[in-house]
Amino acid sequence: MFMGVEHVGVAVKCLDEALRIYRDVLGFRLLSIHVLTERKVKAAFLSTGGETHIELLEPLDSDSPVAKFLESRGEGIHHIAIKVYDIEKTLEEFKKKGVFLVDEKPRIGAEGKKIAFVHPKSTKGVLLELVMK
Amino acid sequence: MFMGVEHVGVAVKCLDEALRIYRDVLGFRLLSIHVLTERKVKAAFLSTGGETHIELLEPLDSDSPVAKFLESRGEGIHHIAIKVYDIEKTLEEFKKKGVFLVDEKPRIGAEGKKIAFVHPKSTKGVLLELVMK
Repeated sequence: MFMGVEHVGVAVKCLDEALRIYRDVLGFRLLSIHVLTERKVKAAFLSTGGETHIELLEPLDSDSPVAKFLESRGEGIHHIAIKVYDIEKTLEEFKKKGVFLVDEKPRIGAEGKKIAFVHPKSTKGVLLELVMK
Repeated sequence: MFMGVEHVGVAVKCLDEALRIYRDVLGFRLLSIHVLTERKVKAAFLSTGGETHIELLEPLDSDSPVAKFLESRGEGIHHIAIKVYDIEKTLEEFKKKGVFLVDEKPRIGAEGKKIAFVHPKSTKGVLLELVMK
């Protein structure tokens, strides 16, 4: 069912400043930058040298979910994105088991992939993103 | 220098309860359980189906760093562990660049691997663990 971690999302106030640290100081390679209008974020994907990327997320609006996260928690790790073979089936199974879902149906995320979020109250405080492989 | 994400650490109050969710409800496969006396935590590694694992961490003592994290932030994602080819060299390079390190020299972590932590104030709030491949 699960096929690894696609990325770990990190909420930051300023993407340029975060890139100066993650790319220029720490040495992670920048892969791509996306503007996700629906989620009101700008996202930069960095390579960690393996199959799991780091996604730096800057909110584009004060009512973006990432802006709300920054307000209450500050900068830091925001979510884990798990690759799944069949996102509809996974959501169906989770729902049957009483898992709280942010998205009951998949929507389109970065790079046009189907994604859905699982609510942190079902996962010990972890915002889990499912990404269709 | 970097060779992927080895695991993502999640701080939980009770490992048994977290396993009931992550293993029994969500369906991640349990790989191993370790007691890390130095860090005063019990850690369970779960497979995500790829190279990156989920590490659930329960503090064994109220003065464990994980207990302090739970007190101030609650349950949730605690750190990202990045595999590096040469941990001493990476720490040396980071130090030269002014990166704040929790551990200036590697110590021994779960499964006997050399590990070292980078301070969140240098990484936009992210506790970064380096793990010698």
